[in-house]
Amino acid sequence: MALIVQKYGGSSVADAEKIKNVARRIAATRDKGDQVVVVVSAMGDTTDELIALAYQMNEHPDPRELDALASTGEVVSSTLLAMALEAMGYEAISLSGAQAGIRTDATYRRARILKVESKRVVKELEKGNIVIVAGFQGITEEMDVTTLGRGASDTSAVALAASLGAEVCQIYTDVEGVYTADPRLIPEAEPLTEIGYEEMLELASHGARVMHARAVELGEVYNIPILVASSFTGKPGTLIHGGVSMEVRNKVRSIAHDLDVAKITVVGVPDRPGIAAAIFVPLAEANISVDTIVQNASIENITDLTFTVARSQLADAIKVVEPICSSIGARDCVTDSKLGKVSIVGTGMQNTPGYAARMFRVLSEKGINIQLITTSEIRITCIIDEAMVKDAVRALHHAFEEE
Amino acid sequence: MALIVQKYGGSSVADAEKIKNVARRIAATRDKGDQVVVVVSAMGDTTDELIALAYQMNEHPDPRELDALASTGEVVSSTLLAMALEAMGYEAISLSGAQAGIRTDATYRRARILKVESKRVVKELEKGNIVIVAGFQGITEEMDVTTLGRGASDTSAVALAASLGAEVCQIYTDVEGVYTADPRLIPEAEPLTEIGYEEMLELASHGARVMHARAVELGEVYNIPILVASSFTGKPGTLIHGGVSMEVRNKVRSIAHDLDVAKITVVGVPDRPGIAAAIFVPLAEANISVDTIVQNASIENITDLTFTVARSQLADAIKVVEPICSSIGARDCVTDSKLGKVSIVGTGMQNTPGYAARMFRVLSEKGINIQLITTSEIRITCIIDEAMVKDAVRALHHAFEEE
Repeated sequence: MALIVQKYGGSSVADAEKIKNVARRIAATRDKGDQVVVVVSAMGDTTDELIALAYQMNEHPDPRELDALASTGEVVSSTLLAMALEAMGYEAISLSGAQAGIRTDATYRRARILKVESKRVVKELEKGNIVIVAGFQGITEEMDVTTLGRGASDTSAVALAASLGAEVCQIYTDVEGVYTADPRLIPEAEPLTEIGYEEMLELASHGARVMHARAVELGEVYNIPILVASSFTGKPGTLIHGGVSMEVRNKVRSIAHDLDVAKITVVGVPDRPGIAAAIFVPLAEANISVDTIVQNASIENITDLTFTVARSQLADAIKVVEPICSSIGARDCVTDSKLGKVSIVGTGMQNTPGYAARMFRVLSEKGINIQLITTSEIRITCIIDEAMVKDAVRALHHAFEEE
Repeated sequence: MALIVQKYGGSSVADAEKIKNVARRIAATRDKGDQVVVVVSAMGDTTDELIALAYQMNEHPDPRELDALASTGEVVSSTLLAMALEAMGYEAISLSGAQAGIRTDATYRRARILKVESKRVVKELEKGNIVIVAGFQGITEEMDVTTLGRGASDTSAVALAASLGAEVCQIYTDVEGVYTADPRLIPEAEPLTEIGYEEMLELASHGARVMHARAVELGEVYNIPILVASSFTGKPGTLIHGGVSMEVRNKVRSIAHDLDVAKITVVGVPDRPGIAAAIFVPLAEANISVDTIVQNASIENITDLTFTVARSQLADAIKVVEPICSSIGARDCVTDSKLGKVSIVGTGMQNTPGYAARMFRVLSEKGINIQLITTSEIRITCIIDEAMVKDAVRALHHAFEEE
């Protein structure tokens, strides 16, 4: 008897019939004799609708109140799913994030999980229950409800799997797994049978929406195999795990893209110690995620500093950065919000020269200008004009995936 | 500086505009310098809609799951109300029943409040917050969410008022207070300025929907004055309190009616000790509230036993009673679900003969047949044909209220 954690996203539980369909899938797993813990998102667009209601009340709703409000969506779907399973003759119980022991810090809207006190979950499993946990939410030490950020039900699921020592964490969604590129853009993209944690982390961090990066990271740390598959078909899906890199080194695994990129350049900065900290510490304190950072070589002790943020955070970032620009004596601060990025990811690139050169040549042949470049050991990312992203993905998929 | 508890019902917070209206009323109270704790029901028909969803999943939804589901309605309205107050520049915080320390037993669907641990509420008041508490709900020792029964946000409010030592508990609803009879039936019915706890308790227990009986009882026990008033007008409303009976003894205070009455008669029961217990203990265990019980005089050791239940509980009651009828050797078990009851209530009736006789004569003059009679010291109730209830209320109001 194994313990399996399954997660079902909002589109999988969007209405009563879909919830019953999910219940049948859970029941089939239970019938094999395994213990099952299920993490569930809110039904369809519930979260968006609740947030819209909040903005009708207040243009700047309090984050604590927003979290308490938004968390109700998952309580609704988890109780309904438990009822559907009971109607089929299975013993089931729903638990809120608080009841399931998901303890977080008090950073509302994007709380981090501090620990999972899984006593209650274990007790209910021992009673023979299928345990349905409301995803996306946790509770602080003060017993205030938090949410973990958009798409973070994946993180709830992997955290539970880790704390319970589950055999596998199965993420059921509306796509059939991880592809060599976004199949909506590249019809000939192929689903992957397996992928390593690091590759998946790079993809998730650079625009692949199939899986939440924090969840992948957590899976890697606790070595929990994660299966990403469709809740609507019987296709096998993609297994994310740690033992895959050795066999498949010489390959670009997948191509990720992201259309949500904005750039800020601080022009004419005096090049002295402490300048980077003066800019990026306040941004971090304002909870703004900075992605790529590039600093040009200094000419006469004056340099330019460029970095990117999500487009939705550009206005907030500017508010933080502009007063700093004046105080550090920068000449100007310019922005560009019409950018995108495209990344090639694969452990095969590690220590293998030539991938970057080939990527740049492919883009150049299509007349695509590269604005910024960043790399990791297993990833190369180019930031380009938003309008060129689709062409770039197509050209790169053709060049790398069909070799 | 006084502490005031206010409760707003579902119709008062049915949509975004109404929530803002309620926020303005709360703000006006706060502006007078008082501390304010607000208990709020779910928006409009939210609770019914959630319950309907549950029945789509399962014909017999688990009570624990139903409670967790239904409790989300009040979390939504309380967070939105807090946001609306903050938008107006007031400091406010929402608390779920659990956070507000409403500890209950584990009788799902109609849990009883065991105690209110008001530490968090007090802390938030001391910080200067208006505290918005989700009504209708509490939490067990096991941290499972319970609900207190339909209409029980009144009870939440009075329980909080009692535990906080509030000066008054104001129940805001869609009617302008307690009337001499249901004003929808009797247009000339008059609002009462004040009424005693016991009279209100009798009215609430016998069909007057304006206030939840359990809340009145709690108000009496802890001597919390309760104001019932409209959230839509500036009318003064009705004050329910303990110091009123002496001055106004010689009067029928109000006439209550209830159309939700069903009758079960166990026919031909052997009249021996233990028979009543054999029937009513299992009904109590099945959580069925029995109202009136009448047992006829025994003829040759055979008697008939008649009792009433809410119409919605008739089917469940029959399921319990029928097998018992066979086992105790009763001849038959017959039901009538088309009954209503009408009650006259007033401390003036206490120790004053003649009220019952006058009531029976008024009904008789209208050709209304009385099926069962029950009395308390300050109430006389007649159970009659449902179709005659309106005529009965009119005739009794005419006879008693216009004297």
